[in-house]
Amino acid sequence: MGETDELRAMCADAAGRAQRARRVLGLMTSGERTALLNGMGAGIRDHRGAILDANAQDMAAGSGLSAALRDRLLLDAARVEGMARAVESIAGQADPVGSVIEGRELANGIRLEKRRIPLGVVAVIYESRPNVTSDAAALCVRAGNGVVLKGGRESRRSNLAIVGAMHGALEGAGVGDAVVYLDTTDRAAVGELVRLDGLVDLAVPRGGPGLIKAVSEAATVPVVKHDAGVCHVYVDEHITGMEEVAERIVVNAKTHRPGVCNSAETLLVHRGCAAEMMGRLCEALQGAGVEVRGCAETARLCGGVVPADDADWGAEYLDLVIAARVVGSVEEAAAHISEYGSGHTECIVTGSTASARRFVALVDSASVMVNCSTRFADGGEYGLGAEIGISTDRLHARGPMGAFDLMTFQWVLEGDGQIRR
Amino acid sequence: MGETDELRAMCADAAGRAQRARRVLGLMTSGERTALLNGMGAGIRDHRGAILDANAQDMAAGSGLSAALRDRLLLDAARVEGMARAVESIAGQADPVGSVIEGRELANGIRLEKRRIPLGVVAVIYESRPNVTSDAAALCVRAGNGVVLKGGRESRRSNLAIVGAMHGALEGAGVGDAVVYLDTTDRAAVGELVRLDGLVDLAVPRGGPGLIKAVSEAATVPVVKHDAGVCHVYVDEHITGMEEVAERIVVNAKTHRPGVCNSAETLLVHRGCAAEMMGRLCEALQGAGVEVRGCAETARLCGGVVPADDADWGAEYLDLVIAARVVGSVEEAAAHISEYGSGHTECIVTGSTASARRFVALVDSASVMVNCSTRFADGGEYGLGAEIGISTDRLHARGPMGAFDLMTFQWVLEGDGQIRR
Repeated sequence: MGETDELRAMCADAAGRAQRARRVLGLMTSGERTALLNGMGAGIRDHRGAILDANAQDMAAGSGLSAALRDRLLLDAARVEGMARAVESIAGQADPVGSVIEGRELANGIRLEKRRIPLGVVAVIYESRPNVTSDAAALCVRAGNGVVLKGGRESRRSNLAIVGAMHGALEGAGVGDAVVYLDTTDRAAVGELVRLDGLVDLAVPRGGPGLIKAVSEAATVPVVKHDAGVCHVYVDEHITGMEEVAERIVVNAKTHRPGVCNSAETLLVHRGCAAEMMGRLCEALQGAGVEVRGCAETARLCGGVVPADDADWGAEYLDLVIAARVVGSVEEAAAHISEYGSGHTECIVTGSTASARRFVALVDSASVMVNCSTRFADGGEYGLGAEIGISTDRLHARGPMGAFDLMTFQWVLEGDGQIRR
Repeated sequence: MGETDELRAMCADAAGRAQRARRVLGLMTSGERTALLNGMGAGIRDHRGAILDANAQDMAAGSGLSAALRDRLLLDAARVEGMARAVESIAGQADPVGSVIEGRELANGIRLEKRRIPLGVVAVIYESRPNVTSDAAALCVRAGNGVVLKGGRESRRSNLAIVGAMHGALEGAGVGDAVVYLDTTDRAAVGELVRLDGLVDLAVPRGGPGLIKAVSEAATVPVVKHDAGVCHVYVDEHITGMEEVAERIVVNAKTHRPGVCNSAETLLVHRGCAAEMMGRLCEALQGAGVEVRGCAETARLCGGVVPADDADWGAEYLDLVIAARVVGSVEEAAAHISEYGSGHTECIVTGSTASARRFVALVDSASVMVNCSTRFADGGEYGLGAEIGISTDRLHARGPMGAFDLMTFQWVLEGDGQIRR
């Protein structure tokens, strides 16, 4: 057996075991799945020591990683407690399995219901943050799915410890294989995993551009991508009385947590208020430590602006840097967003209902904010409970993706002998 | 420019024009789209003569086609009137564009809405039946989408005449390119069309296994397949008092319209009632002109049964032929369906609520019928209006697929200055 055959067999074995376990999981009652999830959360809390030990080994092995990556990788007692609580919060969510999307009685007396049912087995392929391990496992279990987890090499020990901590509860419920960790550092495994038609029902890549690209190109199973967030804030010309709101939103969208995908990367200001607003906004940003890279007009309106080049439009800085541009209209703002954005989240600040309606109609992104920060694009904020990530795809799931987005559905028709005439 | 480059350029041009037109279409009011659809319906009625002439030429050119294919291809005055009425019925449907899936006020005062918005451009690749041309065009327009239509070579003239008949209304509304017919008989065009990422947002293949396979393998854009219907009727052991219902449903599911995908192809009967029911059901089927291909037990219970071989399980006969098998339990029936079915539609006939619940829980098909015919699996019957087909995929759309399934969605958050703390 060649190396590729061996990898394929390993992936098929993992997915096959998850498929068998998920059938048992899907037949449990909602209450049984809730109890299981609470057990998984308690398991993480009980195994805190082992998880922190494993994480310390990952941190030691990853001394060459960047500071940002090391921060994402690092666990401490509070972060482990946060992971346990996230799992328990998922336990407390409404059960999506069997929930009714719509239903009615047909004219012929047949009762029709469109019910959510589990998708099957989800392959979650991710990098760095070990909490994705428990979040993804818990969301999949809540949805009645099996999950094959493939984390990054740098967090291998932490991930295995977290899966180990949840395993007792899963085993006790008779579904030990509902959460399977694909323990290989061979990068080719990802390619094999996402070609297991019939065994893997959905692949969810969550990570940097390299990972997303590798999965998209290799996959034959359906994929919901969690790609870059190149989010824009557009400050409209109708801003009288809203100047302070605009400043507050722009600074929050950029600086509240610059390293995450729902942070703003580009500021667009309408020419009609640029003289008044661009300088004010750039100074506020600079005062918060942000480097502003602006178009020529922006540079004229504000000191200390670095000239932007073509690579700045569409850049996902994930850092205290922002691109800034003057535009002539809502339409021009929307066209810029359409050309350079990633379809994640955009914001308009305006006092005009007409501008707000126009912006929403023209911008085809997963989330559109009117007079509130892009940072709200988040499953927790939307009331979805936890999220497995933020989909930048347009089919099936879009934006923050929770347990309800990990379902398919089934039409159930109940009659008493009806036939088609 | 090589042939492939030319084909690619032709496909990209078609999809690009549809993209530009659909942006205009999506900004129209609901009332404007409704008026446009009524105009498209009237156009078909007004151009009946031209459509029938074109169809007569297709029929003459297709003298070598099978009787079944010729019947699918043939148009007459009544069928053209039916096409016009279908478009007008889609005009009368609720407008999905901007319709709210869910909405609420968040604790911080932000109003959140999840709204349906158009997908973009849909490529519909189909065979034979010319009415798909007008159905698909109307459903896509209702959904605010552009559509690139690629019909079969055998119905080329009919399809072009139908598109021509709708064109005046589209042109008059300023969206002449919202419906583009890809006029080539080069089979390679399909492969190019479904690789136009960024220009084609969804591919919907609707046709035989060859077409489905070709599209699935070539596509890089998302695909929702409309594949085979291998539908099962399972007659449970708890059948006392339901014998006549079982007979009526089995005969209707097989013989009402044997050539369509929601017709039954396999009959499963529980051993506990097989002595009583299998003979009765097979005789009723045989009396209706159906050839029964049965397992050994079936052959012992009923005369005139042809021994089934392995190819009969999972066969989509689309004809007056049915496979029949005795099974030992609901679980065995579900396992047979899981192994041989296509996930389209299955039916249980039972007097037992426990058996019905078990069957629904175990069977992972798009539609599950309890005590009613598989023939009800249809967008019109479900109250969806017309359907673009019946999806056998599990993501995004499943089962009968109407205008609401040709949408993506967008989260819209409206605040008054909220920022993330």
